[in-house]
Amino acid sequence: MQKVCDLDGVFVVEGVKMCDEALQSGATIRAICATHPWIEAHADAAQQQEVPLFEITDAELERISNQKTPNQVWMLLSRPTSDEHQLPTAPLTLVLDKIQDPGNMGTIMRTADWFGIRTIVCSRDTVSCYNPKVVQSTMGAIFRTRVIYTDLDAFLAQRRQEGYTVYGALLEGDNVYQTTLVTDKAILVIGNESQGITAAVRDYIDRPVMIPNRGGSCESLNASVATAILCSEFLRR
Amino acid sequence: MQKVCDLDGVFVVEGVKMCDEALQSGATIRAICATHPWIEAHADAAQQQEVPLFEITDAELERISNQKTPNQVWMLLSRPTSDEHQLPTAPLTLVLDKIQDPGNMGTIMRTADWFGIRTIVCSRDTVSCYNPKVVQSTMGAIFRTRVIYTDLDAFLAQRRQEGYTVYGALLEGDNVYQTTLVTDKAILVIGNESQGITAAVRDYIDRPVMIPNRGGSCESLNASVATAILCSEFLRR
Repeated sequence: MQKVCDLDGVFVVEGVKMCDEALQSGATIRAICATHPWIEAHADAAQQQEVPLFEITDAELERISNQKTPNQVWMLLSRPTSDEHQLPTAPLTLVLDKIQDPGNMGTIMRTADWFGIRTIVCSRDTVSCYNPKVVQSTMGAIFRTRVIYTDLDAFLAQRRQEGYTVYGALLEGDNVYQTTLVTDKAILVIGNESQGITAAVRDYIDRPVMIPNRGGSCESLNASVATAILCSEFLRR
Repeated sequence: MQKVCDLDGVFVVEGVKMCDEALQSGATIRAICATHPWIEAHADAAQQQEVPLFEITDAELERISNQKTPNQVWMLLSRPTSDEHQLPTAPLTLVLDKIQDPGNMGTIMRTADWFGIRTIVCSRDTVSCYNPKVVQSTMGAIFRTRVIYTDLDAFLAQRRQEGYTVYGALLEGDNVYQTTLVTDKAILVIGNESQGITAAVRDYIDRPVMIPNRGGSCESLNASVATAILCSEFLRR
């Protein structure tokens, strides 16, 4: 059976914890499929939001679920429509250039949420934030983060004209611990897991930064780890 | 077929890049199974180390591999024997208290390697560093990091007597950005993904630290992300 995961306009959220967040988030829930224990505990909340609620068996849940160990509830939600012209200027805008791994994408969204970063701008070939593995690994950040997929070339050209400083994670960059980092009107670009930042995007970076390699042998950091350390450096003050 | 992954005394490494690292690492390789292209390119290196080398087909590789997309080569290696009495004191000793997710474990090893941390001490219920998913996500750090599994209670009691400072990642800790961090004779404890640090281990922590939550809504950071940010704070000077 083809599982629901990439239909236009919707996305799937699963499990007790993530679905609790969905109910509280104000997101538009289109349908809930849940087993008896979940319905007993949550029927009121679902009814308040007038969401169609279907009781299903554990076997049925297993059939529709994308999870290895399904946990009581499966929800279909509407994707919010995003307006890429409304960009906040603080504390920092994160730009992802072709992040491919769903676990990395979800972890980056979770980290951004922790640091109060509300907007992530992605190249069109970055993994979808509505990929089920991404959604589940955001731990709820999917409900609080605006993710925009756009042409990075045009996006960065426009921001440069508006006076933004464009930082980028590059192995040959300046030691981030010794660099002055501004957070107002600032953009941080993170590149692909194996190829880094694409040549076209690199042209827009005026402040390349890197995390010094103290070990000497390791070739690189995981992309979500590098993003986290850099966000921490920007926002530690 | 039962796949080789948790046999005593050995572990499996797969793929061109990781196996290149294995050949260069000085680790004891017990056997290599590889397809024709890999053997053509690497036969000399394997023969120099007197490793039994078996040519297999792509179909056979697929049968023995733990990877979704096997990549030319599969190696069986001996696990190094570790001596837990030899502990380096700098730059920092990482202690993992029941880390469960193989991806987190591998990423933590990779990050530690980047920062030059050579020793990781784990509770006995932490995921094995020889788990195939851990091995592959270390990106080679498995060959450069000493991972010791021991009773953390006894280990930390001993270190405290020796004058070590024991830091621990705790949500109710001090703001890490405003804390004086020593790296000589210092230990950093990281807890389980959902339960944090166990009560018994918490008793040994004299310097609890946390990464401030600027977003407000997110409950926690991913364990490997929190570890990376804390390691960065300790070693940024």
